[in-house]
Amino acid sequence: MLLLTFYLIAITAEAMTAALAAGRRDMDWVGVCVIACITALGGGSVRDVLLGHYPLTWVKHPEYLWMTAGAAIFTALTARMMRHLHKLFLALDALGLVTFTVIGCQIAIEMELPVTIILLSGMITGCAGGVLRDILCNDIPLLFRKEMYASVSMVTGGLYMLAIHFELNELASMLVPMGVGLLFRFLALRFNWQMPQFVYRDDWK
Amino acid sequence: MLLLTFYLIAITAEAMTAALAAGRRDMDWVGVCVIACITALGGGSVRDVLLGHYPLTWVKHPEYLWMTAGAAIFTALTARMMRHLHKLFLALDALGLVTFTVIGCQIAIEMELPVTIILLSGMITGCAGGVLRDILCNDIPLLFRKEMYASVSMVTGGLYMLAIHFELNELASMLVPMGVGLLFRFLALRFNWQMPQFVYRDDWK
Amino acid sequence: MLLLTFYLIAITAEAMTAALAAGRRDMDWVGVCVIACITALGGGSVRDVLLGHYPLTWVKHPEYLWMTAGAAIFTALTARMMRHLHKLFLALDALGLVTFTVIGCQIAIEMELPVTIILLSGMITGCAGGVLRDILCNDIPLLFRKEMYASVSMVTGGLYMLAIHFELNELASMLVPMGVGLLFRFLALRFNWQMPQFVYRDDWK
Repeated sequence: MLLLTFYLIAITAEAMTAALAAGRRDMDWVGVCVIACITALGGGSVRDVLLGHYPLTWVKHPEYLWMTAGAAIFTALTARMMRHLHKLFLALDALGLVTFTVIGCQIAIEMELPVTIILLSGMITGCAGGVLRDILCNDIPLLFRKEMYASVSMVTGGLYMLAIHFELNELASMLVPMGVGLLFRFLALRFNWQMPQFVYRDDWK
Repeated sequence: MLLLTFYLIAITAEAMTAALAAGRRDMDWVGVCVIACITALGGGSVRDVLLGHYPLTWVKHPEYLWMTAGAAIFTALTARMMRHLHKLFLALDALGLVTFTVIGCQIAIEMELPVTIILLSGMITGCAGGVLRDILCNDIPLLFRKEMYASVSMVTGGLYMLAIHFELNELASMLVPMGVGLLFRFLALRFNWQMPQFVYRDDWK
Repeated sequence: MLLLTFYLIAITAEAMTAALAAGRRDMDWVGVCVIACITALGGGSVRDVLLGHYPLTWVKHPEYLWMTAGAAIFTALTARMMRHLHKLFLALDALGLVTFTVIGCQIAIEMELPVTIILLSGMITGCAGGVLRDILCNDIPLLFRKEMYASVSMVTGGLYMLAIHFELNELASMLVPMGVGLLFRFLALRFNWQMPQFVYRDDWK
C-alpha cells in the first residue's frame, strides 16, 4: 500500500521532470507526453522485457499512462511556477529512484532470480527511464557521466536484499533501505559527490 | 486482403523514405538496408515486444525483410529519379501511417487489451519505426518536434475503435478511419498544422 | 566447449574496447561498466528479446556480468598500457564478431526458424552490441558508415549454414566459417575495404 503510494508519487514526479527536459528541447505537446510516459514507465518496461515478465505494468494499469501524460501537460501549462520548485523536484526524483529500485528488486525476487539479477533489476527499474529520456533528447545519458544515481540504486537494492535475507518485517525492510538511499542521494547532491571519471585519449582511427 | 496490400505498399514506401534518410547521412549500403528494415518493420516489432506478442511479424514472414531491403537498394540505385517524387512519397508515407495504425489496433483487440492500450498499440505501430530511424541517424525524433504524425495516428485509431464498437462492416470500419486519417494528414501538410510547442528555459544545472 | 572459450574471450575483449570508447567520452566508472556490459552482452540480448528466447544469457549466467564489468574496470585502471595493444584488440574484436555470429545462428537453428532469420540472428548477435554502444555514446552507429562488420557476419553465418546443411562434423562446421570470417575481416582492415556509400542530397525540408 505505502509502496504503491510512493510509486504513484514517483511516476508523477518523473513525468514532470521529463516534461521540463522536453521543454528545454522545444518539443511539441505530443513529444512532451511521450517523453514523460517513457521516462516514468520506461525503466519498469525495460526490466520486464529483459526478464520476460509479461504483461508490462502499464498494459495491466493503463491509468498510469493517463496519469503521467496528465502530469506532463499540467507541468507544461504551469511551467513558470515549476521554475521555483527545483528542490522539490530533486527530492521527489530521489524518492522515485529508491522506490523504483525496491519495486524492481521485489519483482526479481518473486521470479526467483539470482542475487546479481535482483540487484540489477532494481538498478534497471530505477535508472533506465532516465537513460531512455536522454537518448530520445539526443544526449549522452547523464547516468554515465555525472550522477551518483546508479550507486544510490545499488546501495538501496543491496540493503533491501540484506533486510529480506535477515527477515526484517515487511515495512522496515522497505523503509530502511529507502531512507538510507535517500540520505545518500541528498548527501551526494549537497556535497557534489561524483564517481571518478575515466578519461582516455588515443590516436586510434 | 486489402489491408495486406496496403501493408505491403506501406512497408515498401517506408523502406524507400528511410533509405533516402540514410543517404543524407552518407551511410553505406548495409546501413541503408538496416535503417530501411528497422523503419519499415520496427514499429510493429516494438509493439510486439512490449505486448509480448510472439513471434514477430518478420520472423513469421522473412520475405518482408527481403522486400524492404530490396526496396532500399532500388531506391539507392535510382536516387536521382526519387528526387522528383517527393509528393508521392509523402502520400505513401501517410498511407503507411494509417495502415500501420489500424493493424496495431487490430492486434491489441485480438489480445483483448484495454481501450487505452489498443489506441497506444496503433500509435506505436504507426510511429515507432520513424522514432527508431531518427535515433539511429542521431537526430531528435521528428515525431516529438514537428509533425502531426502522432495525432493523425490517434484520430485514426480512435475512429477505428468507434467503428468496431458500433459494428460497422469490416471494410467500412477500416476504410473510413483510414480515409479520415489521410485527409487529416494531408491538411496538416498543406496548411503546415503543428501541435503547440512547449518551450522552457531555466538556470538549473 | 571450444565455442564457450571463444565466447568468454570475446565478451571480455568487447567489454575492454567498450570501456576505452566510454573513456573517450569521459564517462564515470558506472558508465564504463554499463557500456561494457551492454556492448558485450547487448547483441545477444537484442536477439533473445526479438526472438522471444527467454531467459536471456546473462540472467541465466550472471557471472558474465561480473566478468565484463571486471574487465572494464581493469581496462580503465591499466589504460596507459592498453594504448599499445590496438592490434590485439582488433584481433580479439574480430574473434568476437565471428563467435557471436555462430552462436546466434545456432540459437535460431535450435528454435527451428527460417533460413533468413538464422542469418539475421547471427548478424544481430554479432553487430547489435556495437550499435547500442554507439547510440549510448551519442554517435551515428559505425556499423552503418564504415566497417565491413555486417558483411563479415553475413559471410560467416552463410558458410556456417552451408556447413550444417552438408553435415560437416561439428568442429569443422564451426571453425571453417569462423576462419574465413576472420580472414575476411583482417583483409578488410588491411586493405581498408569498404561498402560503397550512398550519398544523397535533396532540398526537401
